[in-house]
Amino acid sequence: MAPTAQLLAGVELGGTKCVCILGGGPDDVRATERLPTGEREHTLRQIEGVLERWRAQYGEFAALGVASFGPVDLRRESPTWGYITSTPKPGWRDTDVAQRLARRFTVPVAFDTDVNGAAFAEGRWGAGAGMSDFAYVTVGTGIGVGSIVRGHSVFGLTHCETGHIRVARKPGDDFAGVCPFHGDCIEGLASGPAIEARAGRPATELPPDHPAWEFVAHDLGQLLHTLVLTTAPQRIFLGGGVMSQPHLFARIRRELESSLNLYVAAPQLAQGLDQYIVPPGLGAMAGPLGALALAAQANQ
Amino acid sequence: MAPTAQLLAGVELGGTKCVCILGGGPDDVRATERLPTGEREHTLRQIEGVLERWRAQYGEFAALGVASFGPVDLRRESPTWGYITSTPKPGWRDTDVAQRLARRFTVPVAFDTDVNGAAFAEGRWGAGAGMSDFAYVTVGTGIGVGSIVRGHSVFGLTHCETGHIRVARKPGDDFAGVCPFHGDCIEGLASGPAIEARAGRPATELPPDHPAWEFVAHDLGQLLHTLVLTTAPQRIFLGGGVMSQPHLFARIRRELESSLNLYVAAPQLAQGLDQYIVPPGLGAMAGPLGALALAAQANQ
Repeated sequence: MAPTAQLLAGVELGGTKCVCILGGGPDDVRATERLPTGEREHTLRQIEGVLERWRAQYGEFAALGVASFGPVDLRRESPTWGYITSTPKPGWRDTDVAQRLARRFTVPVAFDTDVNGAAFAEGRWGAGAGMSDFAYVTVGTGIGVGSIVRGHSVFGLTHCETGHIRVARKPGDDFAGVCPFHGDCIEGLASGPAIEARAGRPATELPPDHPAWEFVAHDLGQLLHTLVLTTAPQRIFLGGGVMSQPHLFARIRRELESSLNLYVAAPQLAQGLDQYIVPPGLGAMAGPLGALALAAQANQ
Repeated sequence: MAPTAQLLAGVELGGTKCVCILGGGPDDVRATERLPTGEREHTLRQIEGVLERWRAQYGEFAALGVASFGPVDLRRESPTWGYITSTPKPGWRDTDVAQRLARRFTVPVAFDTDVNGAAFAEGRWGAGAGMSDFAYVTVGTGIGVGSIVRGHSVFGLTHCETGHIRVARKPGDDFAGVCPFHGDCIEGLASGPAIEARAGRPATELPPDHPAWEFVAHDLGQLLHTLVLTTAPQRIFLGGGVMSQPHLFARIRRELESSLNLYVAAPQLAQGLDQYIVPPGLGAMAGPLGALALAAQANQ
């Protein structure tokens, strides 16, 4: 990162914690600060306080990126652009985040979901460099998917909610799933809490030969089958706590390969799936760097 | 359509027939001509002959759109942009279509899949006017989906192939499906040939109370559930021969509503699905007008 790179600021606004970040990219992080996500006015004032302090200490930043939990309004022409909308999180429904920060800091502000931010960070600095179409999937407390199509995050009726698609079940699997809306959607089948409900103990405690993994790998393979055919990513990043099980990647790749059954003719698939289904290159920093990647977009 | 509208030309290149079209839009079609899709050099020469003849008769057209059967290469920067690529159709693999026509006619040429073209036609002249995100689904000999995301057709690894996603099956349904690649992907479950295989006679001959429709409506409802959550269309056009069964729309809307279970908060869904899941406004002309819509894009 050249020392002349412009200073950018980012806020990863999560459901339980926020991370503020200042810098120019992954090799040039000047400061980070973590805050709990509490009462909204208090939380937003704390974020503003951190950014004000950094501005005094490090000088003006050129742009600000906000990567937020959802659902959010991403339509630039909407009067509620930059709002968190119909969230079930108490006290946060219909909350202006990005417009408020834009008024306060008078710099260009970009706003997107946390998973879209993480996807853009991979596209800018990680293993998606040079690609226009890719997806970032996080399998943890829930299943989140950030789909980038021709360089833009999906946003029409709403942003994508691919974690709640229903998938074809593995024959013989009668687990009802844990999603309060859908039961056995993919989040209800293969998120951390779903695995715990299925196996009777946390995913982190299951040995690689536990039978639950066969179902989880099948179901995540089905999620990827659907992703390949609906938004056609050139690469899929697969992260989150559940994916810290090293045996899962090879199983999921096999499930996807078997399910697609050579239907899609593309060089990226013909070479095998090791370079197609990959862990995020930015690891645990993908979230905060996502906010910084959005700032970099706003600064272009 | 103002009489000063520029003349546009289109070619809908289908697997069994081609339709050439000349005009400015649905209310200003000057000429159409249908040809069988045969040996490729012969077919492409016939198309060129029609366009040459029209040019002599009606004057120069401003742009040309080609809506083709696939798979096709849609990347403008690719050396094989505008080619039909790995098709199983004999003699048509790796066929330059758009570059050839661009050289011959020296006008701007746009090229996309037939379903994407039909989607764009609905967006320009039909029931998707003013929308940036929508999907066109045709349920006939196969199931084709054209997904438009932020004004662009999906194209990354390839164009979308949403007709080959696997869906959650209706409990008690053990039909194996007819897709040679996937068996019970959605095309294998709910296309015309699938319905015929399931019911023992053609879909057009089945009464509305035939039990096969319950499965078909369920499975198409699942396709739409996935579409809503992956590419977030603001409206979905549902056409093709199978959808000429008038009872199907209401059933599919009910299946979708029940499956989403109020998960997606969007005004378009809150008003009921009658305006969300709709027949194509352009009817049987959606295909050729798709080619004309692509020409209009090339002319912008």
